[in-house]
Amino acid sequence: MVKQVRAARTRQSLIRAAAEVFAADGYALASLPAISRRAGVSAGALHFHFANKEALATEVESAATDSVEKLAERCRDVAGTSLQSLMRMMSGLLLAVADDPVIRAGFKLSGDPSRKSDAAILAWWHDCVRDLVLQAQRAGELADDVSPDEATTAIVAATVGIEVIAAMDDGWPPAERLAQFWSFILPRLAAFPESALMAMAEETQPQGSIQ
Amino acid sequence: MVKQVRAARTRQSLIRAAAEVFAADGYALASLPAISRRAGVSAGALHFHFANKEALATEVESAATDSVEKLAERCRDVAGTSLQSLMRMMSGLLLAVADDPVIRAGFKLSGDPSRKSDAAILAWWHDCVRDLVLQAQRAGELADDVSPDEATTAIVAATVGIEVIAAMDDGWPPAERLAQFWSFILPRLAAFPESALMAMAEETQPQGSIQ
Repeated sequence: MVKQVRAARTRQSLIRAAAEVFAADGYALASLPAISRRAGVSAGALHFHFANKEALATEVESAATDSVEKLAERCRDVAGTSLQSLMRMMSGLLLAVADDPVIRAGFKLSGDPSRKSDAAILAWWHDCVRDLVLQAQRAGELADDVSPDEATTAIVAATVGIEVIAAMDDGWPPAERLAQFWSFILPRLAAFPESALMAMAEETQPQGSIQ
Repeated sequence: MVKQVRAARTRQSLIRAAAEVFAADGYALASLPAISRRAGVSAGALHFHFANKEALATEVESAATDSVEKLAERCRDVAGTSLQSLMRMMSGLLLAVADDPVIRAGFKLSGDPSRKSDAAILAWWHDCVRDLVLQAQRAGELADDVSPDEATTAIVAATVGIEVIAAMDDGWPPAERLAQFWSFILPRLAAFPESALMAMAEETQPQGSIQ
């Protein structure tokens, strides 16, 4: 039993260390020795848990997907409108990408040109946004002439863009850019822009985000 | 003289071959032998022109920046409103990323996690968008309550997002997504949404784009 606990801990350390190395160096340059060193385990222990780098990357992606799914659930559980849930989720996701190396690595691995991936985490995010936009429409929260598909495209593209640019450019603080984005689109998107903008001020404040 | 012409041609072939390899494999996995093979030149000829992979990458980024600057000039020279120029430029840019390996590699190298880059092509694109948005505002083409900074953030983030997702996901045709994005934001952005939407139908059609 003690052995199993220790093995599970080693596995978790390896996933976290791999995420940190993938996020910093990209998939192609990430080396297994660097990962086992960072996890504080031997090369043998790494190979006992993971056959190769691809197995580690797959595991990191799956851990990232689990984390963002839990984050999304927490955002939906808080009271408020569907648009509020959507804003809260986008803020929480951008914050998580900045703070959590596993989630950051999950997104990076999805789009890493040196590795073929099925971009599962991106497909999940697209579905999440579409569901909440449709829910907002059913609840009468969207302006009459808004197409849910068009709104989904704009929101998904902007989130990914803000995240990608923030990773490349220090002069692009993601929380601030996200607030600018919402402040620009809410008068178009929402049936009641005034109250949506007031809710936004709360939802996009870093301290108001879901950890 | 003949020798100089031949040297210039070899250099161009190497830049193009490098762009194709960088765009397909990413910076870290791109190998110099693969690049010289694809250019149809010897390893010695490659090293005569470029000291190392980083020198090639810098040259590809600079060739990409030249190309997008020329593209932007052509888009601005066509008659029409500033908003039309902006839409034409975004369509032209997305088309160029899909069709021209040098431009595609330029953007990819900017954001490649295995290589530190100053993201110059992205900064250029941001300035381009902001200039046209401000020009549109001065010409009375923007709705009164639109903040140029907020609109710029939304447009830059969405362009980058559409491009990044299109590279990862075949089910995300960039021209179509771009049309959805404009159709969503023009009623918010433009002082005269009806005519802007009519102009958009022209500017975002692939055949209407600038080659």
